[in-house]
Amino acid sequence: MDISSTFDNMDTGLTQDRPVQMSSFYKEIEPVDGAGNHDVVNNVTIPASGASDPRAQNSLQQSWEMNFQEAAIYLQEGENNDKFFTHPRSAHALSAYLFAHSHLFYVVELLTAVLLMLLSLSEAPAVPFLRLDVYVHATLELLALVMVAFELCMKLRWLGFHTFIRHKRTMVKTSVLFIQFIEAIVVLVRQTSHLRVTRALRPIFLVDCRYCGAVRRNLRQIFQSLPPFIDILLLLLFFMVIFAILGFCLFSANTADHYFSTLENSIVSLFVLLTTANFPDVMMPAYSKNRWSCIFFIVYLSIELYFIMNLLLAVVFDTFNGVEKMKFKSLLLHKRSAIEHAFQLLVSRQRPDGVSLKQFDGLMRFYHPRMTPRDRFLTFKALNHSGAPMLSLQDFYKFYEVIGLKWKARRSGEHWFDDLPRTALLIFKGINLLVKSKAFQYAMYLVVAVNGIWILVETNMLNDGISWTRVVPWSYIIFLTIYGIEVLLKITGLGPITYFSSGWNLFDFSVTVFAFLGLIALAFDMEPFYFIVVLRPLQLLRLFKIKQRYRNVLDTMFELFPRMASLGLTLIIFYYSFAIVGMEFFADVIYPNCCDNSTVAASYRQINVTTGNRTELQEGYYYLNNFNNILSSFVTLFELTVVNNWYITMEGVTSQTTHWSRLYFMTFYIVTMVVMTIIVAFILDAFVFRMNYSRKNREPLDDPEDEKGIVFETEVSQTEALQTLDFYKHTLGVTNLTSLQDMCVALERSGTSLVFLGRRSRTKSDLSMKMYEEEIQEWYEEYSRTNLQTDGTFHRELDSPDAGATNSIN
Amino acid sequence: MDISSTFDNMDTGLTQDRPVQMSSFYKEIEPVDGAGNHDVVNNVTIPASGASDPRAQNSLQQSWEMNFQEAAIYLQEGENNDKFFTHPRSAHALSAYLFAHSHLFYVVELLTAVLLMLLSLSEAPAVPFLRLDVYVHATLELLALVMVAFELCMKLRWLGFHTFIRHKRTMVKTSVLFIQFIEAIVVLVRQTSHLRVTRALRPIFLVDCRYCGAVRRNLRQIFQSLPPFIDILLLLLFFMVIFAILGFCLFSANTADHYFSTLENSIVSLFVLLTTANFPDVMMPAYSKNRWSCIFFIVYLSIELYFIMNLLLAVVFDTFNGVEKMKFKSLLLHKRSAIEHAFQLLVSRQRPDGVSLKQFDGLMRFYHPRMTPRDRFLTFKALNHSGAPMLSLQDFYKFYEVIGLKWKARRSGEHWFDDLPRTALLIFKGINLLVKSKAFQYAMYLVVAVNGIWILVETNMLNDGISWTRVVPWSYIIFLTIYGIEVLLKITGLGPITYFSSGWNLFDFSVTVFAFLGLIALAFDMEPFYFIVVLRPLQLLRLFKIKQRYRNVLDTMFELFPRMASLGLTLIIFYYSFAIVGMEFFADVIYPNCCDNSTVAASYRQINVTTGNRTELQEGYYYLNNFNNILSSFVTLFELTVVNNWYITMEGVTSQTTHWSRLYFMTFYIVTMVVMTIIVAFILDAFVFRMNYSRKNREPLDDPEDEKGIVFETEVSQTEALQTLDFYKHTLGVTNLTSLQDMCVALERSGTSLVFLGRRSRTKSDLSMKMYEEEIQEWYEEYSRTNLQTDGTFHRELDSPDAGATNSIN
Repeated sequence: MDISSTFDNMDTGLTQDRPVQMSSFYKEIEPVDGAGNHDVVNNVTIPASGASDPRAQNSLQQSWEMNFQEAAIYLQEGENNDKFFTHPRSAHALSAYLFAHSHLFYVVELLTAVLLMLLSLSEAPAVPFLRLDVYVHATLELLALVMVAFELCMKLRWLGFHTFIRHKRTMVKTSVLFIQFIEAIVVLVRQTSHLRVTRALRPIFLVDCRYCGAVRRNLRQIFQSLPPFIDILLLLLFFMVIFAILGFCLFSANTADHYFSTLENSIVSLFVLLTTANFPDVMMPAYSKNRWSCIFFIVYLSIELYFIMNLLLAVVFDTFNGVEKMKFKSLLLHKRSAIEHAFQLLVSRQRPDGVSLKQFDGLMRFYHPRMTPRDRFLTFKALNHSGAPMLSLQDFYKFYEVIGLKWKARRSGEHWFDDLPRTALLIFKGINLLVKSKAFQYAMYLVVAVNGIWILVETNMLNDGISWTRVVPWSYIIFLTIYGIEVLLKITGLGPITYFSSGWNLFDFSVTVFAFLGLIALAFDMEPFYFIVVLRPLQLLRLFKIKQRYRNVLDTMFELFPRMASLGLTLIIFYYSFAIVGMEFFADVIYPNCCDNSTVAASYRQINVTTGNRTELQEGYYYLNNFNNILSSFVTLFELTVVNNWYITMEGVTSQTTHWSRLYFMTFYIVTMVVMTIIVAFILDAFVFRMNYSRKNREPLDDPEDEKGIVFETEVSQTEALQTLDFYKHTLGVTNLTSLQDMCVALERSGTSLVFLGRRSRTKSDLSMKMYEEEIQEWYEEYSRTNLQTDGTFHRELDSPDAGATNSIN
Repeated sequence: MDISSTFDNMDTGLTQDRPVQMSSFYKEIEPVDGAGNHDVVNNVTIPASGASDPRAQNSLQQSWEMNFQEAAIYLQEGENNDKFFTHPRSAHALSAYLFAHSHLFYVVELLTAVLLMLLSLSEAPAVPFLRLDVYVHATLELLALVMVAFELCMKLRWLGFHTFIRHKRTMVKTSVLFIQFIEAIVVLVRQTSHLRVTRALRPIFLVDCRYCGAVRRNLRQIFQSLPPFIDILLLLLFFMVIFAILGFCLFSANTADHYFSTLENSIVSLFVLLTTANFPDVMMPAYSKNRWSCIFFIVYLSIELYFIMNLLLAVVFDTFNGVEKMKFKSLLLHKRSAIEHAFQLLVSRQRPDGVSLKQFDGLMRFYHPRMTPRDRFLTFKALNHSGAPMLSLQDFYKFYEVIGLKWKARRSGEHWFDDLPRTALLIFKGINLLVKSKAFQYAMYLVVAVNGIWILVETNMLNDGISWTRVVPWSYIIFLTIYGIEVLLKITGLGPITYFSSGWNLFDFSVTVFAFLGLIALAFDMEPFYFIVVLRPLQLLRLFKIKQRYRNVLDTMFELFPRMASLGLTLIIFYYSFAIVGMEFFADVIYPNCCDNSTVAASYRQINVTTGNRTELQEGYYYLNNFNNILSSFVTLFELTVVNNWYITMEGVTSQTTHWSRLYFMTFYIVTMVVMTIIVAFILDAFVFRMNYSRKNREPLDDPEDEKGIVFETEVSQTEALQTLDFYKHTLGVTNLTSLQDMCVALERSGTSLVFLGRRSRTKSDLSMKMYEEEIQEWYEEYSRTNLQTDGTFHRELDSPDAGATNSIN
């Protein structure tokens, strides 16, 4: 790379070059200005080139700044997968856009949504110790709703009325807001809560939050998987009805058999049987009459449970597979399109096919304001693959791969203690070799295994389970000392940075620290912290490091964790809606001895039975599974999710209300079945993807190379560094240049040049890039073909970058 | 194809050519013979070429026959995936091999094995109405065992002692036979059954049957999936133990909570919770004390049930995927190797790189004795892709693709009624157009839908469910008439052959016939056939034809059926073994009111409760789930498979026996979990494979082209046909040539030439061939590379066919 020419170009570019395309924000900033020379590019008036008056110069500078900002916004939209039709169109929209995309705004948005959802803890039927008066919670709700309304106004200002009403999600939010507003006012006026099923819609505010993008994606995926799911569900229900008719014909003659006494009972029994929850009870009356009747149930379960239910999983898995790939494709192409938009805003009229460092730096000041000049320079160099003085569009396509890198000079030495005096060096070197040796590792595994057996034996011997927490067992202290020494040795031997950069070491460290806390709790007799003691067995998890497969599995587990959490949150949103509906209809219908006229009376019983002279409480406990407040509802819904014995809750509620209540429970079952199937499909997909990936690339995923993640290398020479420093100082006029100065100092010390390493952790997207390598090329070709054929909805001149460039050159 | 040269070559080949390689059977047939000219090929003496004496001629003929037979055996071994080290080595072995590979032998083998297994119906504890005296069933058993011993002797004779003891499966079978023999004699002597757990090994005889090859493959697949399965299982159990310790620490202080009172109870409770069978009961005592304790259970279930259990499926699915592909690969290469072996036996010394029709015909006489000369000729022509007079090895590689074809001359007309007189033709043409029209189809769908709703409404109105079967409802007759007319129209319109070749039509037909039988049953008041009536709703299944996805799903279902059946059989074999063990240990321990000192006493209760003046039987019914005979055991084991409430059976048995009984139930749970996971993985794999296949080939699997399956076309000219007839009649001396004569007659009628179509249904193997197209080439290359490098275990001269050919030419 001819570095001097780079800076030459930049220098001339700074004063002479005008942007090929003007930012859409520009025209409002610079109102129509009669004076001066203007020529029209893209219907926007800009000062003509060669104009030497300072106003024109200033205006040119300002127009570049606008372009940088808009390019940064395009790149942000590409990263966040925001559609371009929500791109701000004017300077007013820009300020609203910037406001609505600040972290403060996001946090307020999230807090408002969470507050609204949490209100149901205090609204009747409330959790006892959180009950609030009606006027308090209604006022809080109104405040929160006003907040939401304000957020919507900002969005309206940013999007413009026309785009606003075209944006479906926002429209739904607006109408829900409207209804809730009216209802909150009604509640405040009447001073009492009416039947407010609409509260079940509150999660919409949460889902719309910027920080809940993952939940939105999950919901979209669920809806995309729905059509095939529903098809198979119909097949399932069809067989259920056929068997219900058959069962009714066969077994209704048996008066002892209430499961098939009517067609409705027959259908309900078979629906519950689908979840296996009433098996084998549902079979027993018929079976005791005629032993061959078991064939009916075996055939039913074989077809429904073992075949069609698995088919359901297969269909969802298959759809899921396709959807994941399509999602990746559309995201990739969206990013590519964003990069093209940004590129077009960054090139100058003189050199319409390249982005110089000056322009790149300008972009980064908006895109990543916290990035130091050194990192901006290094990122530019990393992008610049061809060595030409400017970034071509091909270089710029790699923008998203490079932008997250953390830059660091490559260290000359291997270990943290290389700079210490000789004696210390030898000691630390010894420790380093020790902790890296196989023998040390296996000795530790042995200790952990012995510890595990010890805990098991110890616990088994303490069968009264009360007194043992009072004394500190000596074995605990011994094992803990060993673990403590191990942690210390490893930290000193490897250096804290290397040590803590491994997930497994972090795990070891935190478990050991927790165990120490437990010891302190034991020593000082702090009752509430006893539970920490029982976390000790978690040390045993380390044993699973021994085997490759476990490392794979546990690594996948950690990788899956964020996605699992978002799926969990999605489930909670469904729970919330169902809990609200449940509370509105079934609050306080369940209580001890409530359901004596139902078939599940025994489970709700709470009576004192006197046998001889001893009075004993006979507990059915199921009255605890109620909808009396939102916390109880959540627990009840979790029990319904697990589906075992869920019909007891269903029948209990049904016996206290109407037959239609069953609809609620059955709907809930089907909804959770969908979500659960998606979760299973997701785990299957993630795991199989990982396995295929490591098979395709013939490399285990956990080799040390891989732990580094993605690494980019860039070599910087001393002259280059000084030139850059000079360029930043004089041409750009940046004042805070410590990072660049540090680099120059380091270069002086090390000699002629220094290699910088940019690292980031590997993401699913990187894996997908490698997996679909061949297809990606096809997608790109297809994408550029369609772009040449059709025009986009707006920024038409941009969709084909080459065409745009030629236009502006003429 | 130059047909005359083909026959020329054949003619000369008949008298002159000697085989390149001699069958290993040959040398014993023809003992060392001092007279005549012999030269040594492959250490076998054969008459020298040009020898004109009839004895040498006869001997040459015989040596060819031997070669044909051995080639046919190789091809059979390739087809059945029999390893070549069990290939018969001598004439004695050959006769034993032929005997042991006759269908009679297979049937006897199967019947013996089934008889042995069925004996457990009559042995104590026997099914009441099948009880036999000890000397009867012991004698039967001895007879069956003698039969098995005889079969083993035949195998010994065929394999030779050395191979016999190397064959693991046979050795296991021998030792089991030995033990069972001794035991049967002991039973016969003592006249009473002792504890005979070894009966659980009886399924080994069944698994070893030729007809149970699919079961063997399943078992192999299960064992191959075991290592990863066990790894994850250990992880599962590990978390279970950690949580058991934690649960014991947290909840053992609560005296009302018997689930966590000891560490053992704690582990058992959490094991059962893994199957969700005791949820939420297991949580309730703790939950009623402290509402936050639900977190323990939610976390446990989330980790174990929703994460690790799914991981288990993912791992098995992944392994399964790989195993299926490897199986296909090894089968493919084995077939290729078999074809090469056979080819080497069929080529002559004069023309060592081709198989002539004469030799092919000789082979087919052994391989497919029932095949007509015409079909043999057509198969030869289908194989002969290059048009050369002989089959090259490349041609011959397609042997297995072509061999199953059913040949038929392409009809000149489209419909079966094309040859009828004009009036009839028009009528049938009209019917044909009618039944093929969309309108007719949708009208039928409408009828079926109306029928479905009718049945539902009708059943719902008859809520007493007793009297309705006595009268024939008029709606039944009307709908049945419509269906009957439809079937008749379709049969006449499409012709019976076209009609019955579609699976869906067969389904329609059989359901309609069943419905007619039901009507007759109703009309004649035949009680036992009432159940046929309730099969009516099955007609509704036809509605699912409307949608593409359902057709896909249902077709996959039909395709999967054979494999599912074999998986079911595998499951039954596991059931059998567990049932025997269960009967030996737990027979008669369960009876009404048996378990009063256990926690599940209520489920076993059977008492008369008198409330006021009404006496009511309070039934717990669970005493029916016992191990009192093999049929009850099977039902009980099915209930354990479904896992809901399985702990009631476990606790009942445990309270009557010892704690160790739980081991039986837990082992059974884990075994069924393995089999069930395999079944799920299998369904997933089959379905996803099908979807991928149809995506890859961009064709829906159910287009009409596909229904034809695999089709080969061969054109036969009149001269060719006559030449072939002549060749068969005079050169080969075949007497029964009706098939060829018919062909000649048909050719005379139709003109110069006729196209013959060979069809067979598409198999999974065909789909796999297309799916792995690219990889297959790699496999072949790799295979020929390794064959060039290393020598096989025997038939060394065969492993590289070219080398072998050169040898014999010299």
